[in-house]
Amino acid sequence: MKLEGIIAYPVTPFKGAEQVLDLEALHITLNALLEQQCDAIAPLGSAGESAYLSWSEWQEVAKTSIAVVNHRVPVILGISELTTNMAIQKAKKAEELGADVIMVMPISYWKLSDQEIYEYYQQIAAETSLPIMVYNNPATSGVDMSPELISRMFQEIDNICMVKDSTGDIQRMHKFYELNHGELPFYNGCNPLALEAFCAGASGWCTVAPNLLGKLPSQLYQAVMTGDLEQAQALFYKQLPVLRFIVQGGLPKTIKAGLNSMGFAVGNPRKPLQKASPAQLEQLQALIKSATTA
Amino acid sequence: MKLEGIIAYPVTPFKGAEQVLDLEALHITLNALLEQQCDAIAPLGSAGESAYLSWSEWQEVAKTSIAVVNHRVPVILGISELTTNMAIQKAKKAEELGADVIMVMPISYWKLSDQEIYEYYQQIAAETSLPIMVYNNPATSGVDMSPELISRMFQEIDNICMVKDSTGDIQRMHKFYELNHGELPFYNGCNPLALEAFCAGASGWCTVAPNLLGKLPSQLYQAVMTGDLEQAQALFYKQLPVLRFIVQGGLPKTIKAGLNSMGFAVGNPRKPLQKASPAQLEQLQALIKSATTA
Amino acid sequence: MKLEGIIAYPVTPFKGAEQVLDLEALHITLNALLEQQCDAIAPLGSAGESAYLSWSEWQEVAKTSIAVVNHRVPVILGISELTTNMAIQKAKKAEELGADVIMVMPISYWKLSDQEIYEYYQQIAAETSLPIMVYNNPATSGVDMSPELISRMFQEIDNICMVKDSTGDIQRMHKFYELNHGELPFYNGCNPLALEAFCAGASGWCTVAPNLLGKLPSQLYQAVMTGDLEQAQALFYKQLPVLRFIVQGGLPKTIKAGLNSMGFAVGNPRKPLQKASPAQLEQLQALIKSATTA
Amino acid sequence: MKLEGIIAYPVTPFKGAEQVLDLEALHITLNALLEQQCDAIAPLGSAGESAYLSWSEWQEVAKTSIAVVNHRVPVILGISELTTNMAIQKAKKAEELGADVIMVMPISYWKLSDQEIYEYYQQIAAETSLPIMVYNNPATSGVDMSPELISRMFQEIDNICMVKDSTGDIQRMHKFYELNHGELPFYNGCNPLALEAFCAGASGWCTVAPNLLGKLPSQLYQAVMTGDLEQAQALFYKQLPVLRFIVQGGLPKTIKAGLNSMGFAVGNPRKPLQKASPAQLEQLQALIKSATTA
Repeated sequence: MKLEGIIAYPVTPFKGAEQVLDLEALHITLNALLEQQCDAIAPLGSAGESAYLSWSEWQEVAKTSIAVVNHRVPVILGISELTTNMAIQKAKKAEELGADVIMVMPISYWKLSDQEIYEYYQQIAAETSLPIMVYNNPATSGVDMSPELISRMFQEIDNICMVKDSTGDIQRMHKFYELNHGELPFYNGCNPLALEAFCAGASGWCTVAPNLLGKLPSQLYQAVMTGDLEQAQALFYKQLPVLRFIVQGGLPKTIKAGLNSMGFAVGNPRKPLQKASPAQLEQLQALIKSATTA
Repeated sequence: MKLEGIIAYPVTPFKGAEQVLDLEALHITLNALLEQQCDAIAPLGSAGESAYLSWSEWQEVAKTSIAVVNHRVPVILGISELTTNMAIQKAKKAEELGADVIMVMPISYWKLSDQEIYEYYQQIAAETSLPIMVYNNPATSGVDMSPELISRMFQEIDNICMVKDSTGDIQRMHKFYELNHGELPFYNGCNPLALEAFCAGASGWCTVAPNLLGKLPSQLYQAVMTGDLEQAQALFYKQLPVLRFIVQGGLPKTIKAGLNSMGFAVGNPRKPLQKASPAQLEQLQALIKSATTA
Repeated sequence: MKLEGIIAYPVTPFKGAEQVLDLEALHITLNALLEQQCDAIAPLGSAGESAYLSWSEWQEVAKTSIAVVNHRVPVILGISELTTNMAIQKAKKAEELGADVIMVMPISYWKLSDQEIYEYYQQIAAETSLPIMVYNNPATSGVDMSPELISRMFQEIDNICMVKDSTGDIQRMHKFYELNHGELPFYNGCNPLALEAFCAGASGWCTVAPNLLGKLPSQLYQAVMTGDLEQAQALFYKQLPVLRFIVQGGLPKTIKAGLNSMGFAVGNPRKPLQKASPAQLEQLQALIKSATTA
Repeated sequence: MKLEGIIAYPVTPFKGAEQVLDLEALHITLNALLEQQCDAIAPLGSAGESAYLSWSEWQEVAKTSIAVVNHRVPVILGISELTTNMAIQKAKKAEELGADVIMVMPISYWKLSDQEIYEYYQQIAAETSLPIMVYNNPATSGVDMSPELISRMFQEIDNICMVKDSTGDIQRMHKFYELNHGELPFYNGCNPLALEAFCAGASGWCTVAPNLLGKLPSQLYQAVMTGDLEQAQALFYKQLPVLRFIVQGGLPKTIKAGLNSMGFAVGNPRKPLQKASPAQLEQLQALIKSATTA
C-alpha cells in the first residue's frame, strides 16, 4: 500500500444534551468526505476528538468507519494514549476490526525520555502486524519527538513505516528526507503549510479541510504534482484563510460549526470544549464562501 | 479549615508484572508520611500517577487513603481530567468518600480558552460542596491559567478557595497576593522554589519531599515562620540538590526509586514511564544521604 | 528596478593581527561573487559583520563595493543601527555614495514598541530617496517585527518597498502575501528555507551561499521558476547540508573559513567571534565537496 | 571592598532637541540618589542608556560620576560592548578614571559560544586590575550566560569576583550558591524579585528604584537582614507595583518620566526610544504616590 495525496479526517458526531455518539451522522459525513477526492480516511484523530471518547465509543467509531468506507480507500485509525497498555489494546482492536494503518501518538503527563518513547512504539509494534504511522503533534500531546528519534524507530522497528508531523516546522521534513535518504514517507499535518510541505517532498497532507473546502485540497495536490506552481500558489492562497482560521479556532469546534451550517448535523465538541460563537461561525462562513467561489 | 505548612504527596504503589494497585503498600507509605510533620495529605496528585489510573483504581486509592489518614490531617484528593463530565464524576465521588478538599486541574488536548476553563471549574463547583484548590501545572497538563483568571474564579465561584501553582514563576505568587489583597491562599508546587515561595507569603508547600527527606521540609517551614532566615537558607540549600533531582527526573520515577531503596516496596511507575536506572538510583541515594546527615 | 532571484552577501575581509580592513581582498571576493549568476550584491549585511565595523570602516566598505560592482547589478547596503540618528547618517551616506537600495534593521537594547519601530523607519525614509528594504532578523537584532507592522509601513511610508525576513517562519511570507494582496515583494533570508520560500512566492533569496556553492543557488532559483519541482528538490537537498552548517556555525565564521580554504584570503571574524576550528573547517569542506560534485 | 545592599543606577540626562549630555543634571541626580541610603552607585548601566552613547560621551559620564560621588560609596561603571577591543578600551579608561568596579556584559549580534564569552572576559580581565562584576541580562544583550559558565570564570579568572543576574530566574541564584559553595557574591538585577533574591542569599539589589522610591529599597534590605520577614513582605508588596511598571515600560523611559515629574530635568531617552505618554506618566505617578504614602 502506498499512501499519497489527501488523507482526510472526519469529525466524531454527537447528538443530544448528553452528547452520545451519532453513528448515523458519522455515516453521512464519511460518505460526503469520500466524494472529495480523498486518498485515505483517518477516523479518531485529533479532529475526531479521539482523546475525549471512552474505550467503547472508540470501538464503535472505528467499526462504523471501516464499514462505511468499505475498502474504497485505506482507513487509518488514530491511537493517542497515555499508557502503553491502553495503546496496545487499541492497536489489537484496530487490526481485529480491519483497519489498514494505525496512526500512533504518545500522550504525556510526565515527560517521556527518548528511550521511553522508543519502547512505547516498540511494544505496540510487537503486538500488531498493521503498518504504523508515527504521529508527532506536541501542541496537543505534550510530546515532541525529534526527527532523529523518529528516523531511528523507522529504521529499527519493523512496522513503523511513515510519519505525520504537525509541528509546522518545515525543516523537520528536510530532516526526515536527509536522515533516511528519501525512504521515509512523511506527511504534513499542519494545514497552513500544505503548499510548502508538498514542495519539500511530503507524500501527503493529513487534513480536515475537505470537510469544508471540497476538492480544493485535492486540486492543490494535483497542481503541485504536475509542476504547475503558479496554479498551486493560487489554489493555496485561496484556501489559506480557512486553513488558518480552523487551526487557530481548534479543529473540532470549527469543523463541526462549519458542517452544521452546511446541513450536516454533527453536534458540538465535548465539554470543556465549546461550540463556535455566532461571530466565529459568521466569519468562518464568509471565509469558506470566499475560498470556494471563483 | 485553614491549610498551612507542608502538604505531602504520596505515590501510588503497584505490585507484580501487571502493576496492579498495592493498597497495603499505600497504607504503609501513608502512615510513614504522617510521621514527617505533614499538615495535610494529597493522594492522587501528579506524583500519585493519577492520570495513569483507571476510574475504579482512582476510587480505590481515594477510599483507602481517606481511611488510613482517618482525620489525623486533612485529605486533599487530586482530580485532573480532560472532560468536564469525568471531573464532575470524581468530584462527587470524593465528597461521598469523605475527602476534605479537591485539587482540580483541567488537562488539555485541544487548547482551552479562559472561558472554557472558567466553565469547567464552575460546573464542577456546582456539583460539590467541597472546597476546591485550583491546580496550575502547565508542564504536565498543557493548560496554563493566568493569575488573572484564577483570581477571577476565586472571587466569583463559591467553593474555589485556594490555588496551587507549579510553574516555578515566583511572580505569579505576587500576582495572587496583589489581585486578591492577600486573601487568596496560594501554595507552591515547585520544589526548588520552596524557600522563596514561603518568603513571598505562600501558605504552604505541596511536596513529595517528606517521602525521602523526612522532617526537613517541615523544619524549613518552621524556620521561615520564626523569622530565622539564616537557618531557613541552610535548611533549604541542604535539601535543594534532592529537590532538583526529583523534579528533573520525574516524581513517580525518582520517589518510587527512593522509597524502594528505603525498604518501602512501592513498585515502578506505569509504562511508558520507566523506573530509575541504577546510575540514577545511586545518585539519588548519595544526594539523600548528603541532605539528611549533619 | 525589480529585484528578483539571488541577492548575494559578501563578507568583509580583514588582514593582520589588528584585523584592519582588507579592501583589496574585498575587491577580489566581490568579483568572484559576481561570476555566480547573482542578481544583486548586498555588502554590509549580517554576514559582512556590519555591526562590528566603525563608522569610517562602514564607509570604506560601502564605497569600495559600489565601485567594484560598478552597476553590473544593483547594490544593496546594509544599515543596522541602535539609534535613529546613526541610521539616518548611514542612509544619507549610502545615497551619496551611489547605492541602489538600503536594507535597514533596527537593533534593540531596550525593547521597541511598534510605534517606536514605525517612527525609526519613517524618520530614516524622510531623509533619503533610496528604496528601503525592511530587514527582520530577530535572532541577531533582538527586534521582531510582525508582518502586520511591516505591511503597514509598506503601505504608509513612501520608499519602504520590500521586506527581507530571516525568521525561518514560512507563515510570515503567507502573511506578507495576503496582507498586501501580493504587492509587497518579500525576500527570504533563512537559507535552509530556500526551496519553500520560492514556492511560497518569494521574489528572491538573500544568501551568502554563492560564496561557497557557486551557481547552485541560482540553479535552484531557475528550476523553481521553470516549474521543474523535481529538479528543484534535487538541487535543494544537494546544498542543504552546507546551508544548515553555515547557519548553525554563524555566517562570518563559516563563510570566511570556507573562502580562506578556497584561496581567498579574507581573514577571520572580529573578536569575540572566533574562527572555525580545524574540525569545523574539515566538516565544511567535506559538505561543500559533496554538494558541488555530481 | 565588600559590596552589599542597594546598588543604585542613575540615568544619563540629556538636554535640548539634540539630546546632548547634561552633566549638570547628572550631578544633581547623583547627589539626590546618594541621599537614599545607597551602598554603591553604578553609572552607565542599562538604565543609563550606555548602549546609546558615543565613546566620548561614555567617558564624560564616567568622569563626572566619579567626581560627584567622590568616594562616598564605590562607583561601578557599566561596560556593554559587542567587540572585545572596545570593551578593553573602556575597561582601561575606567581604571584610569578611578572607578572601583566594572560591570561587564557582552552584547551579541552573532551568537557567542561559551568559549567566545570566556575569552571575551579573560582578555578584558588581562588588561585591567579592577574587580569585574559579570552582568547577565539576555533580554537586552542577546547573550545568556549559564551559571556554570559564570562560575567557571569566577573560579579561573582572577579579577572576576561577582555576578549580577537580571534574568528573573531565582533558580540561577541557587546555582551560583551551590556551584561556588556560597563564595560567589551574586546580585539581583530583576526588580520584581527583590524580596526573594535577598531571601535566597543575594548580596545586593542592583536597582533604579531609589530614583523614584527614595529609601524604600534600603528599608526592604534592612528588614530582610534583621529577619523581620513580615515587615519585609509589607515593604516589598508596597513598592512592587512601581517595580513592575518600570520594568515593563522600560527603565530609561519610565525613570526619566518619573524624575522629570519630580522636578529633576533629565530629558528623554534617545530615539528610537520614546518618552512616556501622558497616560503612562499619570499611572506611574499614581503608583509612586501609593507606594510612598503610609
